[in-house]
Amino acid sequence: MDRYEQVIELAKRRGFLWNSFELYGGTAGFYDYGPLGSTLKRRIEHIWRDLYVIQEGFLEIETPTIGIEDVFVASGHVGGFSDPLCECIKCSEAFRADHLVASIVEVPDTLSNKELDMIIKENGIKCPECGGELGNVYEFNLMFKTTIGPGSGRTGYMRPETAQGMFINFQRLSRFYRDKLPFGVTQIGKSYRNEISPRQGVIRLREFTQAEAEIFIDPRDKKHRDFERFAVTIVNLYSEEGQDNGFVEQMTLGDAVNRGIVAHEFLAYHIALTNLFLQRIGISQAKLRFRQHKRDEMAHYAIDCWDAEIETDRFGWIEVVGIADRTDYDVNAHSKMSKTELAVYVEYDEPRIVTNFMVKPDMGKLGPVFKGKAKAVSEALKILPQEELEKDEITVVIDGEEITVPPDVVEFAEETVKVSGETVVPHVIEPSYGIDRILYCVMEHAFDEEMVVANENDENPEKEERIVLRFKSEVAPVQVAVLPLLTRSELMIPAKEIVMQVRERGLLVTYDDSGTIGRRYRRNDEIGTPYSITIDYQSLDDETVTIRDRDTMMQVRAPIKGISDLLYNLVYKGKKFETSGMPI
Amino acid sequence: MDRYEQVIELAKRRGFLWNSFELYGGTAGFYDYGPLGSTLKRRIEHIWRDLYVIQEGFLEIETPTIGIEDVFVASGHVGGFSDPLCECIKCSEAFRADHLVASIVEVPDTLSNKELDMIIKENGIKCPECGGELGNVYEFNLMFKTTIGPGSGRTGYMRPETAQGMFINFQRLSRFYRDKLPFGVTQIGKSYRNEISPRQGVIRLREFTQAEAEIFIDPRDKKHRDFERFAVTIVNLYSEEGQDNGFVEQMTLGDAVNRGIVAHEFLAYHIALTNLFLQRIGISQAKLRFRQHKRDEMAHYAIDCWDAEIETDRFGWIEVVGIADRTDYDVNAHSKMSKTELAVYVEYDEPRIVTNFMVKPDMGKLGPVFKGKAKAVSEALKILPQEELEKDEITVVIDGEEITVPPDVVEFAEETVKVSGETVVPHVIEPSYGIDRILYCVMEHAFDEEMVVANENDENPEKEERIVLRFKSEVAPVQVAVLPLLTRSELMIPAKEIVMQVRERGLLVTYDDSGTIGRRYRRNDEIGTPYSITIDYQSLDDETVTIRDRDTMMQVRAPIKGISDLLYNLVYKGKKFETSGMPI
Repeated sequence: MDRYEQVIELAKRRGFLWNSFELYGGTAGFYDYGPLGSTLKRRIEHIWRDLYVIQEGFLEIETPTIGIEDVFVASGHVGGFSDPLCECIKCSEAFRADHLVASIVEVPDTLSNKELDMIIKENGIKCPECGGELGNVYEFNLMFKTTIGPGSGRTGYMRPETAQGMFINFQRLSRFYRDKLPFGVTQIGKSYRNEISPRQGVIRLREFTQAEAEIFIDPRDKKHRDFERFAVTIVNLYSEEGQDNGFVEQMTLGDAVNRGIVAHEFLAYHIALTNLFLQRIGISQAKLRFRQHKRDEMAHYAIDCWDAEIETDRFGWIEVVGIADRTDYDVNAHSKMSKTELAVYVEYDEPRIVTNFMVKPDMGKLGPVFKGKAKAVSEALKILPQEELEKDEITVVIDGEEITVPPDVVEFAEETVKVSGETVVPHVIEPSYGIDRILYCVMEHAFDEEMVVANENDENPEKEERIVLRFKSEVAPVQVAVLPLLTRSELMIPAKEIVMQVRERGLLVTYDDSGTIGRRYRRNDEIGTPYSITIDYQSLDDETVTIRDRDTMMQVRAPIKGISDLLYNLVYKGKKFETSGMPI
Repeated sequence: MDRYEQVIELAKRRGFLWNSFELYGGTAGFYDYGPLGSTLKRRIEHIWRDLYVIQEGFLEIETPTIGIEDVFVASGHVGGFSDPLCECIKCSEAFRADHLVASIVEVPDTLSNKELDMIIKENGIKCPECGGELGNVYEFNLMFKTTIGPGSGRTGYMRPETAQGMFINFQRLSRFYRDKLPFGVTQIGKSYRNEISPRQGVIRLREFTQAEAEIFIDPRDKKHRDFERFAVTIVNLYSEEGQDNGFVEQMTLGDAVNRGIVAHEFLAYHIALTNLFLQRIGISQAKLRFRQHKRDEMAHYAIDCWDAEIETDRFGWIEVVGIADRTDYDVNAHSKMSKTELAVYVEYDEPRIVTNFMVKPDMGKLGPVFKGKAKAVSEALKILPQEELEKDEITVVIDGEEITVPPDVVEFAEETVKVSGETVVPHVIEPSYGIDRILYCVMEHAFDEEMVVANENDENPEKEERIVLRFKSEVAPVQVAVLPLLTRSELMIPAKEIVMQVRERGLLVTYDDSGTIGRRYRRNDEIGTPYSITIDYQSLDDETVTIRDRDTMMQVRAPIKGISDLLYNLVYKGKKFETSGMPI
């Protein structure tokens, strides 16, 4: 069993992740979050919201998962969101053509369908399932398609990303933020990608959760107001140059901007915020790097893109967050498609005096030369760009006819006007998170096995293996387990009272009285419960309980009175376990 | 403008609710939650989770929104989740046939398609849009359909409810809860209903959010362990009898169970929990009632169903929650379809001694009579039911041949065995919430207009109208507004410091320095911000600020030190405003 298998086995057994529709044989590309997985996911999302919504102030919106066609025509998904598909003529199994040739060519995803066809034929590649002949490669659009309303209805698609719901609300959002740049907006929700044949479990899903932020900034100033906060943050950067030469550099983000490695402060700030988030939820620093998109893989309109990549045992480095400067591409695309001006009027701090080059046609001279066309020539001259007017021969087009205007009928002048601002199309900085992959990585990085003393309470030297999920206490699904030492009502009743008390503090607590205490500790180690409370006969005498720390298996004794505040501080406030009671 | 229009106008203007895809002309049945709407929604969901997940311990799971066909064949949605559809032959507009005849017959939703056709023809009903002839009525399935994977792929549907994702996980969930009844599970997520022609705005959506709980209980015991908690809770019950006779009764849930109005304690407990939830988020008690399903509208398998209904200005009483005892219908449906036993083995408290009726065939006598068939006859006798064995003439069937067995070759006996438990198929109690409707009702019930003094800080007697959303502070999207009295940096800087301080306490706070202080108060009244902090020149002297209460517009002065804890206690802990500082 490799680490992936170990994690998934535990995840299934303990109620983190289940194959969807297993009762009916299952379907690839879908996973259920069981009770613990769903809770873990919500805690990860909660921390994301704390950072992006509460701290950064990028308010969240929620838009439908079904979208109409216009949106995805404008975004380019109807035209270009596809993979090359190749079907077996014999057994009809479908494959991604670029995957079929992956062992033959180095960068198969840059090949055209014709090139893929050729390589498949030349190398005699057959169906990996049945050995049959493969058909021609064609593009398969990855959006799930449906119909809105009855009859022929209206074409709808399940959204391939949450981002478009934010872009098409640009006007309303801008008004909400009173047209002041920069402003940000976020969305956490389901997105869909009808993968041809997903084979990587929870890493490649057909339905997945994204958390995206779109930050609309002034394109003329990409400095970040609070950059100081992260200028000294050290991250692992895998720059374009580093990829060419095979090295990852540890450096501060201040240096990265100064050396021109990261394009600007705003992008660097968001690399730092991503770094902060991933470490807060428990991703190890050593297994986290930021990889720059190389010029030939980056979207043509983008200025700079960095992927947060996390190292996993089976899949190597996988992309979990993309952080991009998408320029004004998305806003312009929707502006064009909807024929609506999408821009922000930015006032200058002080009105500016601007000198404009002016043309003053002399009607007294134009009239005799151009007769009835004089007026039209005059108007045409007024809108000619400056460089046309400065030519030796000035030409205008009136009703399709080219007319040469003698220079002496035109006078030029300069005019100064007071301008109080200008209209700009904002650029977009987009951090885009794949929550499902991140959740898997959190589990893998938390997963640990070790040999420990079999019976913690006795002094038994026998050793056994324990599996433990070393979750950060802030993300652990079950935060506290309450365990009466024995199934006797004199212990069970006060145990249940403690459960109620801790619940009221808003902590997720479980009560467990089945099996030996050692077994119950192991069970809670396996699901990553950071603290276990045990009620024993001493508790009845002195109103204290033991608290056990998952990671060290150390135990302290603490009074029942105030236990829920103590646990709250341990889980959320970074209280040290050693200071929580009398060591045992 | 009626109240609905007023609320929706405010909701659009202030960023609560927006028509989806407005940039492209919009599509009926979809709404966006703007920044404030989305935050309001999350707060409502958070309280729901507090009650159901934390307090009741019904852990949440998350299953895909796309489902495979088997699931919805078993659930009955492929066969029966449809509305009668009627299209105009001339303009192709689609209508719900039962809506077309609503002014002619009293209960149009009980009519067959043939009956609907007849009524439309007899009454000469034409297309309401263009006056054209209407086509025949047919059933339109309300699930959005799609295809999973390439090629002909596999049929998928957008789920019409979150419930099925929980039912098909019954086995795994039961194991998770160690096969102990009762256990509960919840899910909050998107569901879909491809409405024929939705015309009620946010009340009837094609994509909506459900919060559902499925509680699996022992069918032999529907008492609730904690019923005492709610036995004295008074609710407005609109029972079947009440509906027949036109009265709503206020009564305790204890009485309702004792008088046989609500079927049993478990259902009554969940009516109370719904009542508690709706009041906690701000639904007025006077506009909330529980309506029992009448025998002819209730699903055939259900034992008792109650809808929580909320009174709205435009739509009257609308259903927002359904609370049903669905018996073992769903579990059995999936058991049958998947050919898998879905049940729980329930151990008795004490093993029971059970007496079984036994048959003892006497081979010594059977042999001579039946020869080679003696063994088969013996086996057949053993599995005959008791009533067959007690007949005067015992008949068994061997290889299709009916054989009469003389009574004297068979002996009977009774055997006592020890049985430690039995297998039961649990019944399901299901509270099912429509979150979008509830959110709208919270806004409508919070909406208020009143005449107030125009300038609160001066003693100006001029009156003006203010709109105020009187949200409970626990659901208000923006919890605190921080307002420097003037746009002077000596006030703005400390104001921003307070923003940071309050943010760190996890409260959603906005900073606003544009416009007069009166205007800013009004703006915050309109979005329901419960508390506004103003920083003035006195603040610089004595380190205090004013806190203004949205509802009463009263102001107190409180020290900046500790302001974030004070606000937290006001928002979440029910601290009284009057005790928060020196009255002004």
